Amino acid sequence: MDGQTAGDDLLSAIRPEIAQLPESGILIVANYGREKEGLLPLWFGEGDLPTPDFIGEAATTALKAGNTFYTYQRGIPPLRQALSDYLERLYSVPVATDRLTVTTSGMQAIMLTMQMLVGPGDEMVAVSPVWPNIFSAARITGGTVRQVATERREDGWRLDLDRLVDACGPKTRAIFINSPSNPTGWIMPEEDMIALRDFARGRGIWIIADEVYGRFVYDGPEGSRAPSFLEITEPDDRLIVINTFSKNWSMTGWRIGWVVAPPALGRVYENLVQFNTSGTTTFLQHGAATALNDGDPTVDALVERCRKGREIVCSRLETLPNIRLTRPAGAFYLLFGVEGETDSIALAKSLIDRAGVGLAPGSAFGEGGEGYLRLCFAGSHAHLEKAMDRLVPALGG
Amino acid sequence: MDGQTAGDDLLSAIRPEIAQLPESGILIVANYGREKEGLLPLWFGEGDLPTPDFIGEAATTALKAGNTFYTYQRGIPPLRQALSDYLERLYSVPVATDRLTVTTSGMQAIMLTMQMLVGPGDEMVAVSPVWPNIFSAARITGGTVRQVATERREDGWRLDLDRLVDACGPKTRAIFINSPSNPTGWIMPEEDMIALRDFARGRGIWIIADEVYGRFVYDGPEGSRAPSFLEITEPDDRLIVINTFSKNWSMTGWRIGWVVAPPALGRVYENLVQFNTSGTTTFLQHGAATALNDGDPTVDALVERCRKGREIVCSRLETLPNIRLTRPAGAFYLLFGVEGETDSIALAKSLIDRAGVGLAPGSAFGEGGEGYLRLCFAGSHAHLEKAMDRLVPALGG
Repeated sequence: MDGQTAGDDLLSAIRPEIAQLPESGILIVANYGREKEGLLPLWFGEGDLPTPDFIGEAATTALKAGNTFYTYQRGIPPLRQALSDYLERLYSVPVATDRLTVTTSGMQAIMLTMQMLVGPGDEMVAVSPVWPNIFSAARITGGTVRQVATERREDGWRLDLDRLVDACGPKTRAIFINSPSNPTGWIMPEEDMIALRDFARGRGIWIIADEVYGRFVYDGPEGSRAPSFLEITEPDDRLIVINTFSKNWSMTGWRIGWVVAPPALGRVYENLVQFNTSGTTTFLQHGAATALNDGDPTVDALVERCRKGREIVCSRLETLPNIRLTRPAGAFYLLFGVEGETDSIALAKSLIDRAGVGLAPGSAFGEGGEGYLRLCFAGSHAHLEKAMDRLVPALGG
Repeated sequence: MDGQTAGDDLLSAIRPEIAQLPESGILIVANYGREKEGLLPLWFGEGDLPTPDFIGEAATTALKAGNTFYTYQRGIPPLRQALSDYLERLYSVPVATDRLTVTTSGMQAIMLTMQMLVGPGDEMVAVSPVWPNIFSAARITGGTVRQVATERREDGWRLDLDRLVDACGPKTRAIFINSPSNPTGWIMPEEDMIALRDFARGRGIWIIADEVYGRFVYDGPEGSRAPSFLEITEPDDRLIVINTFSKNWSMTGWRIGWVVAPPALGRVYENLVQFNTSGTTTFLQHGAATALNDGDPTVDALVERCRKGREIVCSRLETLPNIRLTRPAGAFYLLFGVEGETDSIALAKSLIDRAGVGLAPGSAFGEGGEGYLRLCFAGSHAHLEKAMDRLVPALGG
């Protein structure tokens, strides 16, 4: 057999669902442009600030003290306590440690939850456009995802709640809500959250709330935050909240997240952690606890930086007659449309060639995303200004 | 609803396969004895040496240098190169970097492989007794595991290869071999590996080789190692090799492992990493590379320490007439039987109460394990001597 034949043979010998996992549209574009000299990449979901020193030092101290052994599957007690304190400080509701599990990334929090809720024959309804990893995680566990797209109006992105409710059928086990949304910045209004909670309670459907960007909101005073499902539910509600250290404290490379679940599911998550990765790096958890306990000013400063980043990119692109955008209410992305463009991958590639700027294609984010491009404004302001100087003329401004 | 009712209701609202994941028999015993004052725990699979400083320093340096961003899903290039160099040094066969994926623990290497190969309706055949997490990982992905037990003879544990072959039916997608074995120390002879390779090739069955303890062998000269499936296969064979940094370099708390697979599966593992955890901690990978490049003396010293640990525990227990044991050829566990005892969980609990020593019950390891207890001899010699001083009289010596 030659190499190609051998490769095809091997791919036919694994589960077809896994062999056919789609390549991320973001990566298709990133791989196209990654090596281009002088490229300004705004396609991924992270800023350009390294983790603050005080967080790294706490982890280093724990490492030097010999915290290099196996530890609690659900996370070390000081970290779970710090999480409980943080959530209560933020939302003014108690979140007991028996509801908390530390995970190896927000992504893992999602995967464990898919394993628990969305198996073969099960459906999940997700509000789109949405981070495409959601679709693939559900596909790996055997489930299917039905999408309900938000729509861009003059005053922002909007979800038609009736359409979401209508999309839930007899096989629907869970509804996935990412608010503030990656990629649109949409924030679900609290009255909609309450209506959805009541609908889900009546039907016994789980709500999976990805609240990773909950601190990144722009239209209120400094220190504002998005409403959380934690505020309008009871501990025994069928609610799973997904979160991560990645965005708030510039810790993308650390791979630590957490999940909030009903207390009765504690042993279930303990098992799932055990059989997926057997826990999160012991000494790094001390750094994560320090981020929670001492990192509020870090988050506030980062959100302010992003607020100015949003101003930079929106004020420049708003001047262009062929650009469709509304300022994102939250998260740190702008999803904007270009008049007449219907192939966002081709457009993103063309902007790499013509402008030297890397954007993510909207089509990667599912229904409602095609015709749009996603731009991350979490980076430095000088970097964003430079990218705008290139993008505006390339887009016809 | 009261708390109990609410909990039952929630557990009935998740996938039954997940709700019913069995609690680890090791944890049942450990939870029974964990808080007992003065207990000597030998139930888990780790020693008592913290990670060597030179490895921690490499990670700390990378952290301080700002390596805190997202990185390659399959691992940073210097780590994959160090893995390739290490494996070639050890086995004198080339293992190209396109076959290597860094994972968040050996456990994750197993889970990703289960997702890829062992879905609903699929069967895996595993040589038992075996680390129980294997069963649960396959159960989470929807598969079933058929066990073929090794048997203890005067000269060591033995596998009847014909029984392994006979256990493979039309639904068998993979054969799981952990050699050297946790918990028995059994090492699969190279001629059996070749025969199994030929059988698997003929039937198109995958071999999953868990070679985590490949460096821990005791009956040859210093620097010996167990035979590896890497030595007797081609890159395009249906072979997945699982490994971890945990045991060789005392890095259990780090959560880093790796997998060797055919080059054609590179993108598959990249996707699986992406959708399970989105990668392994960036700066820690620099520590792992240093472990591989500079850590050979560390491994040799640790194996020597375990060789003496094996001598301590075996020489003491061999004197007891009611103890059934053969010296383990590899890994760092002794699985020993006690005449007349058929309930290893009850026996392990009783030894906590009567001797203050924590052992793992053999029944946790599947077929062939009941009636035995597993003792980890990777700890300090003083600790092992003290445990023997307590165990020998309690076992009737």
